[in-house]
Order: sequence, then C-alpha cells, then structure tokens
Amino acid sequence: MAEIGEVEDHLADERRKAEFDVSAMKVVWAGSRHELEITDRMARIVASDPVFRKDNRAMLSRKELFKNSLKKAAHAWRRIIELRLTEEEASKFRSSVDEACYPDLHWGMFVPAIKGQGTDEQQKKWLPLAKKLQIIGCYAQTELGHGSNVQGLETTATFDPETDEFVIHSPTLSSSKWWPGGLGKASTHAVVYAHLITNGEDHGIHGFIVQLRSLDDHSPLPGITVGDIGTKFGNGAYNSMDNGVLQFDHVRIPRDQMLMRISQVTRDGKYLVSDVPRQLVYGTMVFVRQTIVQDASIALSRAVCIAVRYSSVRRQFGSQNGGPESQVIDYKTQQSRLFPLLASAYAFRFVGEWLKWLYTDVTQRLQANDFSTLPEAHACTAGLKSLTTSVTSDGIEECRKLCGGHGYLCSSGLPELFAVYVPACTYEGDNNVMLLQVARFLLKTVSSLASGHPPVGTASYFGRAEHLMQCSCEVRTADDWLKPSVILEAFEARAARMVIACAKNVSKTLVLEEGFSEFSIDLVEAAVAHCQLIVVSKFIEKLQQDIPGSGVKEALQVLCSVYALSLLHKHTGDFLSTGCINPKQASLANEQLRSLYAQVRPNAVALVDSFNYTDYYLNSALGRYDGNVYPTLYEAAWKDPLNDSVVPDGYHEYIRPLLKQQVTSRAARL
Amino acid sequence: MAEIGEVEDHLADERRKAEFDVSAMKVVWAGSRHELEITDRMARIVASDPVFRKDNRAMLSRKELFKNSLKKAAHAWRRIIELRLTEEEASKFRSSVDEACYPDLHWGMFVPAIKGQGTDEQQKKWLPLAKKLQIIGCYAQTELGHGSNVQGLETTATFDPETDEFVIHSPTLSSSKWWPGGLGKASTHAVVYAHLITNGEDHGIHGFIVQLRSLDDHSPLPGITVGDIGTKFGNGAYNSMDNGVLQFDHVRIPRDQMLMRISQVTRDGKYLVSDVPRQLVYGTMVFVRQTIVQDASIALSRAVCIAVRYSSVRRQFGSQNGGPESQVIDYKTQQSRLFPLLASAYAFRFVGEWLKWLYTDVTQRLQANDFSTLPEAHACTAGLKSLTTSVTSDGIEECRKLCGGHGYLCSSGLPELFAVYVPACTYEGDNNVMLLQVARFLLKTVSSLASGHPPVGTASYFGRAEHLMQCSCEVRTADDWLKPSVILEAFEARAARMVIACAKNVSKTLVLEEGFSEFSIDLVEAAVAHCQLIVVSKFIEKLQQDIPGSGVKEALQVLCSVYALSLLHKHTGDFLSTGCINPKQASLANEQLRSLYAQVRPNAVALVDSFNYTDYYLNSALGRYDGNVYPTLYEAAWKDPLNDSVVPDGYHEYIRPLLKQQVTSRAARL
Ligand SMILES: Cc1cc2nc3c(=O)[nH]c(=O)nc-3n(C[C@H](O)[C@H](O)[C@H](O)COP(=O)(O)OP(=O)(O)OC[C@H]3O[C@@H](n4cnc5c(N)ncnc54)[C@H](O)[C@@H]3O)c2cc1C
Ligand SMILES: Cc1cc2nc3c(=O)[nH]c(=O)nc-3n(C[C@H](O)[C@H](O)[C@H](O)COP(=O)(O)OP(=O)(O)OC[C@H]3O[C@@H](n4cnc5c(N)ncnc54)[C@H](O)[C@@H]3O)c2cc1C
Ligand SMILES: [Ca+2]
Repeated sequence: MAEIGEVEDHLADERRKAEFDVSAMKVVWAGSRHELEITDRMARIVASDPVFRKDNRAMLSRKELFKNSLKKAAHAWRRIIELRLTEEEASKFRSSVDEACYPDLHWGMFVPAIKGQGTDEQQKKWLPLAKKLQIIGCYAQTELGHGSNVQGLETTATFDPETDEFVIHSPTLSSSKWWPGGLGKASTHAVVYAHLITNGEDHGIHGFIVQLRSLDDHSPLPGITVGDIGTKFGNGAYNSMDNGVLQFDHVRIPRDQMLMRISQVTRDGKYLVSDVPRQLVYGTMVFVRQTIVQDASIALSRAVCIAVRYSSVRRQFGSQNGGPESQVIDYKTQQSRLFPLLASAYAFRFVGEWLKWLYTDVTQRLQANDFSTLPEAHACTAGLKSLTTSVTSDGIEECRKLCGGHGYLCSSGLPELFAVYVPACTYEGDNNVMLLQVARFLLKTVSSLASGHPPVGTASYFGRAEHLMQCSCEVRTADDWLKPSVILEAFEARAARMVIACAKNVSKTLVLEEGFSEFSIDLVEAAVAHCQLIVVSKFIEKLQQDIPGSGVKEALQVLCSVYALSLLHKHTGDFLSTGCINPKQASLANEQLRSLYAQVRPNAVALVDSFNYTDYYLNSALGRYDGNVYPTLYEAAWKDPLNDSVVPDGYHEYIRPLLKQQVTSRAARL
Repeated sequence: MAEIGEVEDHLADERRKAEFDVSAMKVVWAGSRHELEITDRMARIVASDPVFRKDNRAMLSRKELFKNSLKKAAHAWRRIIELRLTEEEASKFRSSVDEACYPDLHWGMFVPAIKGQGTDEQQKKWLPLAKKLQIIGCYAQTELGHGSNVQGLETTATFDPETDEFVIHSPTLSSSKWWPGGLGKASTHAVVYAHLITNGEDHGIHGFIVQLRSLDDHSPLPGITVGDIGTKFGNGAYNSMDNGVLQFDHVRIPRDQMLMRISQVTRDGKYLVSDVPRQLVYGTMVFVRQTIVQDASIALSRAVCIAVRYSSVRRQFGSQNGGPESQVIDYKTQQSRLFPLLASAYAFRFVGEWLKWLYTDVTQRLQANDFSTLPEAHACTAGLKSLTTSVTSDGIEECRKLCGGHGYLCSSGLPELFAVYVPACTYEGDNNVMLLQVARFLLKTVSSLASGHPPVGTASYFGRAEHLMQCSCEVRTADDWLKPSVILEAFEARAARMVIACAKNVSKTLVLEEGFSEFSIDLVEAAVAHCQLIVVSKFIEKLQQDIPGSGVKEALQVLCSVYALSLLHKHTGDFLSTGCINPKQASLANEQLRSLYAQVRPNAVALVDSFNYTDYYLNSALGRYDGNVYPTLYEAAWKDPLNDSVVPDGYHEYIRPLLKQQVTSRAARL
C-alpha cells in the first residue's frame, strides 16, 4: 500500500499470520484483474488529489459542504476528460470521490431514464447534451405525499391540443416533488413523473423531460418553485446532496418532451401504446437494484475493514504477568459479532456479481421478447435489495459499536458511513414494501405449481417442494455442517416450508387480499428466508468455480460456512419450528461456528486488506492500514473548530458570570 | 395540549377511538400525580422560553452549537434559581432543556463521585462550591488507551512526601484522558482516576480532585493540556458537549484532594484502608445505571410517539373506489415493527421504576452492612442497562425507517434522537462487557446452588431450577398465552435452561477462564434471556398492583402480552431448542400476537399521547400532536441555510463553466 512509508506497520504481525495469498484474493474481490487494476488506479488518482480532500467534511457547514461538493464534481469532470478516461474508468473515478452529489442522479437516474423510456429520436436529442453535462438532470418522482405508491402521485401533465404542449401542474401541497437528489440547487432539467391527462382522461403515470432553470443564469423558469428540503441525517454524509422540493404552476413543455418509447400522445391528443413491451421498464429496475447490492457490499466491507483493523490494534483486559493485554479481536463475543459481517460482505459481493450476470441475461431475453424470467428476476432483485441494504445498515452500526467509544467520533469514519448509507433501506423501494413484493411472487409461484408451470431461476427449488417438505437433515457431527449440499437443503427446506405454510393459511381466507394482509408478517419472514437462501446458494456456486491463489478458496469456504451457519443460528426458530433441523443439530451448528471463528481469526486482517481500500477512501483513524490509531485520533482532535481557541467563545458571557456569582442559600431552594 | 389552538387536529379520529382514560394513563407513565404535575409544569416552562429554542440545532456549526448550549445552561441555571425550584424540579427542568452539556456531568457524575467517595470533610469543602456552580466539574476516567478496563488506566498520582502533594502525570500518549464530557472547554475541575503510587508501590486506581483551569480567566493551569476530542456522530446531537482530552505534565495537587472515604494516604505516605466497605462504590453504579434505564424508556417512547403519530397520518396504497388510501399504521407489517417497541417503552418505564426501588433497598442494606443482595443488584442493573439501551438504539432507528423517506430529514427529529442516544450503549459500561458480567454472576449463582445458598431477588427462580429444567408448557390454545403464569414459566425455564447448559459446558473445561471464554457467546445469549425475564416479570408485577382509570389496566395488559410474545417470537429458537415450548405452541403465540396487534391499534395514538410530550420536546414535524405534518415539513425546509439564495453559492465557479464548456468528442473518450 502506498500509505506506509517509513512508519511502523502495527499490523505486521497480523499480516504475517495470513494463510492465503492476499493479492490473489484482491482479484477475486474486484471481480477480475482488469477491474482490480482500474479500481486501484482510479482510487490512487483520487486519493492523491488535494481537491478531493474529505477529512474535514464533518466540520463544514451545510453551505460550505455543498459548495465544496460542487467543486469536487466540477474537478472530477475536468480530470475525467483530461485523463481521457473510458466510461468504465470514469464511473470508478466518480465512486472513488465518495461524495454524494448531483452527478449520482444525473448519471445514475436521469440518463438511464431517457435511455430506457425515450424514443430513439429523444435519445438522439437529449443524451449528447446530458453526456457532455451541458444540461444537468435529476429524477423527480417522489412527492411530499407519495413515495412507495407511485400510482398515487398527484402531479398532472395535461395535454393542450391548442398549443401542442403539456401543462405540468402541482395541484396540492402534497403533490410537491420532494426528495429528488440534485433537484434543490444544481439541476437544470428533470424527468418528472406525472399523471398524463388527454381529453379529460387520465392515462396514469408517465415521465416528462422538464427544464427547471435557465441555462444562462440558473434562475428557476417561470412557474417553477424549487429549493432544498433541508438538512438530513449526519455530519457531512448525504448533506452534500441537494435533495429538493419542486412545485409547478401550470408550466408548459412541448409535446415531444414526454418520454414516448412505450406510449405516445399524438398531435391531436390521442393516447397510443407502442408495441415496445412495457416490461422493458423492469430491466432498468433490475439494473439499478443490482448496483445497490454492489454498493451494499462496498459499504459493509468498508465498515468491517475499519472494525477488524481496530479490533486487532485495540487491547483491553487479559494481561498476564504484566504482558500486553488481549487484542479485542481475540474475544469470542467480538468475533461472533464481527466475523458474520465480514462473511456477509463477501457474500454480498458474490451475489452482486451474479446479479450483473442476471441483468445481462434479462436484457438479452427482453430483446428476444422472452419475458418468462422477468417476474422471478424482478422479485429476486427486489428481495436482494432489501436484504443486503438492511444487513449493511445494521452492520455498519454494529461495527461502530464494536469500536467502543472511539467509534462514536467522526474521525473513526463510521458515523458518516452509517448516515450516508442508511437511506438505501428506503430509496429505490422501501425494504418492507420490497419484501411484500417478493412474498406476492412466492405465493404466485406456489399457486402455479399445481398448474405444471415449472418455477425458474432462484425459485426453481419449489420444483422439488414435495421432497423439501418431508426431507430430514442428515447432520450427525459438527463437520457435517461443512457440506454445501447439507446447508443448501436446510435453507431450501426452511424457505419452502415457510412459504408453503403461508400459502396454505392465505388460501383459507375467502378474499385473497385479506389473507395476504392477515398473514403479511409471516409472509415477510418467509420472503427473508427465500432471499437468504439465494445469497447462500450463490456463495456456494461461486466456490464451485475454479479460484486461483494459494489458500484463497479455502479462506472463502470458511467464510461461506460462517455466513450460512451464523444465519442458521440467528434464525434457529425458523429451522426448528419447520422441523428442518432438530435441537441437537442446531447445537452442532453452533459448535462448528465456534471452530470456524477460530479459523477466520488469523486471516481476518488479510481478508479486509483484500478489499484494497486506500486510507483516503476509508477516511478513518481507526481503520488505517498501518494500525497507527492513537496518534491519528489525537491529531484529528486538535483540528476541530472548537479547539481554535483555548478559552471557548461564550466563556465571558455564559461561564464566567456563573462561576463568579454568589448564590445565597436564601435565593435558591436547592 | 397547549399546542393545538385554532388548528385542526388531524388525529382527532384516532383519539376518539381510544378505549382507555388517557389522563389516568399519563399518571401511570409519569409514576404519580406529583411527578406528572412537576414534569408537565417544567416541560411547559422550558417549551415557552425562546432561549431554549432547538429547532435550528442541526444547522448550527460546532462552535455556534457549543456556544448556544453554554447560553442555555447559564439561562437554565438562572431560571432554576429565579423560580426557586426544588432539587426534583430543577432536575426535571434540566432534562426538559434536552441538550447535552457540561451540567449533565457536573450534576450526574462529578457531584455523585464526591458524595460517594469523598470523606465528610471533603464533602463539606467541595459540595457547596459544586452545588452553587462556583466550580464546574467533570468525571475523568477513560483514557485514549483504556475504557472498559479501568485497571489498565495509565495516569499516575505519585505521592511526594517532601511537599505533601500528589504528582499527577500522563506518562504516554495513550494515557491521555479522552472522552470526559464537559472536560474539553467548560470544566474548571475534574475527578481524575489514576494509579496511586506511594513509596514506589502501586495501590491501584483512585480518584483525585484536580483543578484544571484558572477560576479567573479559564486558562488551563500549568502542566495541563486540555481540548476537545472533535466532532461526534450526528447533526447537533452530542456535539453540544465538549468531550475532552487532558494530559498532565507532573501536575501537583495537595494530598487532601485524593478522595479518601474508602482509603487514605497519610502525611508520611502510608496507605490505609478505612473500615467503610468498598462495596459502597457499587451503590453509585446502581444509581447511575438506574437513571440510564429511565432514560432509555424516555428516548424510546419519544421515537415511538413520532412514528405512531406519523404512521396514523401517512397514507399509502389501498385506496378503494377513489376513497382515501390506507393509513400505514393499518398495515400488519408496520404494526409488527412498531407495537413491540411501543410495548418495550412501557416495559422499560416500569422496570426503571422498580430499579428506583431497588436502589433504595440496596442503599438501606448497605447502611446496615448487609451486602448479601449487592452482587445480584449489581448484575441486574448491568444487564438491564445493556438490554434497554441496545433495544432503544435499534428501536429509534427502526422508528426512523418506519417513517419512510421523511424520517431521514432532521426535521423529523429522529436522526438527532438516534445520534444523541446511541453512545448509551457504550458509556457507563460497554453493553457486551456488561452482559459478560451478568454471565459471570449467573455462573456463580448456579455453582452455589449446590452449596445451599438460596439465590436472591431477580435470580431467585434458580431456586426452582429442578422444576424449571423439566416443566412443560401447558399452552393448548392461543388464549393460554395470555396467562401471566404461563408466560413467566416459559421465560424462567428458557433462561434457567440456557444458563445451566452453559454452566455444564464451562465446568467441563479444566481452566474456568478458558471455559468462560470458549462459551462466552452462549453465555451472553443466556444473560440476555435472564435480563428479558426480569423485564417481563416486572411488567407482570406492575399489573398485579391496583391501577386506577377506565380501561388503563386492560390496555397495559395488552402491551405486556405484546412485549412478552414478541420477544418469544424473536427468540423462538431459544424456547424450542431448550424444549420450553413446542412448534405448535410457538405458532399459537404468533396467532395470539396478531390478535393483540389488532387490540393495540385503536389505542396506539392514545398510548403515545400518554407520554405527555410537548411538541417542543419532540421537535419533530412528523410527530406533531395535531398531525399537521406536510405544511410543517414544507416550512422547515425553506429555513435551511442552503435556501438563503435561489442560485447557490458556487454556481458561477463550478456549475456554469461545466454547462457552457464545449466538450469535443476528440477530447473525451467517453
Ligand atoms: C436520501 C434519499 C434520496 C432520495 N432520492 C430520490 C430521488 O432522487 N428521486 C425520487 O423521486 N425520490 C427519491 N427519494 C424518495 C424515495 O424513493 C422514497 O422515500 C421511497 O420510495 C419510500 O417512500 P416513502 O418515503 O413514501 O415511504 P412510505 O411508503 O410512506 O413508507 C412509510 C412506512 O409505510 C410502510 N408501507 C408503505 N406502504 C406499505 C404497504 N403497502 N404495506 C405495508 N407497509 C407499507 C413502509 O414500509 C414504511 O414503513 C429519496 C429518498 C431518500 C431518503
Ligand atoms: C459520548 C460518550 C461520553 C463519554 N463520557 C465519559 C465521561 O464523562 N467520563 C469518562 O471517563 N468516560 C466517558 N466515556 C468513555 C466511555 O465510558 C468508554 O468509551 C466506555 O467505557 C467503553 O470503553 P472503550 O471505549 O474502551 O471500549 P473498548 O473496551 O475498547 O471496547 C471495544 C470492543 O471490545 C470489546 N471488549 C472489551 N473488553 C472485552 C472483554 N473483556 N471481553 C469481550 N469483549 C470485550 C467491547 O465489547 C467492544 O466491542 C464516554 C464515551 C462516550 C462515547
Ligand atoms: Ca424468526
């Protein structure tokens, strides 16, 4: 690593303990040599550029923070052009900058929306402008009153045949667009979702390209009220983003700014549906959610990297005969909280990689008009979005707690990581709403079993439902739990039995919707079981591939078992109550887990080194590569604005008078 | 409530649904009419005083925030004296101000340390100064290198018989005091914990009163380096507090500033231990932890109040025939996440109340030299500290997520509540370390069963271990789960079986410490089971008392069952694997739980109204008493500094040049 020069490596002993080839593991983590090379090169360029400095982020005011993020965005764009980066490189470059800002939405939502929903003509007009940043766009769907329920949006786009325009309007306060990132201050344009109304008829929600601000002086166009929705969770964090509010007072746009790939409005106001399949829209969703799963593995691995390194440096208790105290990573309870998260980071990485493949597969099928796998792919990405973001949010906070008091300081890097990450549980589909969608898909899968439709993809285990309903786990020794087939069958049986039990309960109710609602709590638990199975099975599949590098596959095998068995332990109730395993087998799983933790222990630091994060990227006094924790914390402290003066501002007005006043005992009753 | 005047009450329908007398429930929640009256009166005085304004807290810079909190502290002190408040009133007044600041540590740690560890003479000298705020004190124990392991602290206090002084010294960087609240900028004095050394002999950790700053100009005294340790988690939140760093370079203090109630150093440097029992120190710990449990119930109830009210206002999906959409509180999945937290808030309130009694009981026994219940009381408070703060932290964040996107805005009040609350999991004993202490106590309890020592207090169920190891749950119908005796036996049997299984495993190892370490993960789980049992049993005991008010007891009975059965559901694995219940009974518990949620539903808003929080205190656009959510969110947004100008600062430097630049396709490879 570039960061260690003359300084002592306090983690050298830990690194010597590693039983696998870290450089080979780096390739596995990155996905390929090629990806490792690019990620590494981009990360270093960003890390060495003082404009991208971020260690002061928690101390900036909202305005300073926002201005600074505009500066970074502009500088990043300039560097991307100067360095003549490819699209792949540019995207890694931007994520290395690691600061939420309008380009995230411009590149991540605005451009894809035009690509996915615009006609060829519209794409030809708008994409070059967007791709050269001659316009800045955002994605304006959510309103003050409606997020999850998109059909409930209240903004209207009424066609006026006289002028060949749409009139975009916000009829109520709750119809104000609310949340779109980049909207508040930066964007010149937005894709706005609104009810399309022609000839008095409501055709449901459609997307429209609307210019918001003058390209000359950035002032809002007539009829447009726009601003920022205020400070969000955390210091720094997502406050560099201008999530915005937007109201339209009868704003007119030309007819050709409705995104018309899937449906059109003609010159005379007729509403037409094209032969392009509506389902294409789901393709984009699969894409976006796949990146969210990737991001989950990055955020979680970052937190785990900090906590593992600090736990190896931190010593507390257990000194024998005046020797050094124990490293806290040696405490079993610390391991039992930390190592399952380490394993989850790897698990999410591999399931994310697989989702990339799934996206290509779905896209190819869509092009060939094959929609058969779409519901399954859609449910699968919705479920994995929910599962991975929930675990990652909780996991970052757990890592922070694992660092004791020091984790509460911004200089640990963990508070900001948490605050910037958690909205992933909410945006792109509230996690609970996502699980309910998965549950609906699973109920449908079960009900169509009878009709002879074989379930596909991640639901194909339902094809073996009969076996899974009555199979019994064969574990007799703790080592039996290391067999992938045993693990897989236990997870499949658990998910199948939970889903089918729900299906039976629901089918007993007269009205399906009532049954769904009545048993929705159980359904959500069953959906979680299904999603966990997917992650477990993709980890196992990954290990069936050839993985080069001394000890690499072995180390991953241990993590895979830790992932599965720690889940099994956490959800023992599911496995026992469905009769998938018995109490003795649950206890053998625990025994195996203890022994697995001992196997992870010597490799822990090497396993987080394999993420290949720079110290710049981690931005954490506790997670430094060289483990030089205490001097770094100490130096960071003195930089706080509160230390600008020894005697604080406010002393003369608010402290001195107190200290000097004479409180007579008569005056106070205290 | 004072807050609703002319404005429509959007929650009026909800309030009409309530099946119990809210004013009677307010008394139950407050503890007594007397407490309700005081709390209410203090809360209103603070809420109506513009100096205590806090809605802008998330937008202030660290320095502004700190200065403002000094202002509030000074103003609070002035008002407390002007209004001639009693100690009880003053304490409620301070907590109504709801801003972390040096008085918390001064009154909460500095004064109690002198009371608990100072001789009568020392108390006579220092307490009047402290009580009149002529000095400001903090509690300086934790160091950069040591928190949990107090014995590992490195600061030294070496007696110099020549001058009759102690020399306080920080020998290493890691011995720097680090974290004490109020230390960084405000305190003039500290109780400093250091190794006492006389005649070259180390007598372990003792407390010393050390003056840090001049009482004339607040400058640090010679040999003292002191400052703030930097920005912490969250906007506003705990950043109004000056957690500090402190180093001593051979600082001399008179001998009589060692706190000498329990041990003394004589003029000639002899170390004496007084006949005052050391255990007295534990009394203070029981006291402090009891207040932490009280605070947990307050923080959790605050978050739940916001989430329940907003969930009743928020409508999403489920519109039928163009009617209004469903209130999200009507979704079972929302209920299953929210109502157990509502029940936990009440459960923690009652166990906190009981802990107050326990503290009085322990104090009386200590005065009578009866130490028999001390280990049990100590373990019990350690465990409840851990349990309630963990659940509360997670619970606040869950409430935030239950509010969807809007929960992520600071104007929801939830981000700050979370960030200011979470360190409770760490300070006053890391929660995991606390559980390990409980585990040790439980192992001792089990091992002394044989020797005929009857276990006392919250451990007395081990006296019925034989029965609990083989009893079987009698539940046949869902309604059987409503019987307190059934619940209690299930929780007792689960805890007893888990603890005894651990004890057996540990006893099989040759070295006890190794066994403890090897099975520490299971031991921590057993300790949690024990602590949950305590909370359940105290809730049940509460309901055996006379509780006046129409429908009040009934409503609480429902919450008690929700609390117990939601825990049972979450930990089904424990109950099944120990054979305390069978899968059929687990499923009946779930069935009962579903019906209980339906019973909570009409009372939900009334149950949070019973906390009697003012809108000022909640500081939440989502949690407003009148449910007028959207206009409040909207108005709060425009107050953000980023909305000071329509075109943002930075536009001319960083946005305009991008929009105007011509990127030739030759230049970029994109
Ligand atoms: C940081 C951030 C960035 C964002 N960026 C954008 C953006 O760029 N563009 C944009 O358009 N939007 C954006 N959003 C908005 C985001 O997409 C929505 O907040 C999200 O879709 C959730 O919707 P909601 O807020 O309406 O939640 P709600 O639906 O109101 O959820 C509230 C609660 O109700 C529950 N609930 C809702 N419906 C049901 C149901 N049917 N059954 C059971 N429970 C239910 C939920 O689980 C949740 O607990 C952003 C949000 C955030 C926080
Ligand atoms: C906001 C805040 C305010 C504070 N105020 C004060 C104050 O006023 N005065 C003061 O003196 N201090 C204060 N503190 C310090 C606080 O008391 C310590 O942070 C706390 O005691 C935890 O200790 P630690 O930070 O050393 O954690 P560590 O002990 O370093 O914990 C790190 C990890 O190691 C684990 N661990 C440690 N020991 C063991 C073991 N034996 N077995 C298994 N696992 C173990 C822990 O569970 C944790 O996961 C404050 C801290 C905070 C965050
Ligand atoms: Ca479960």
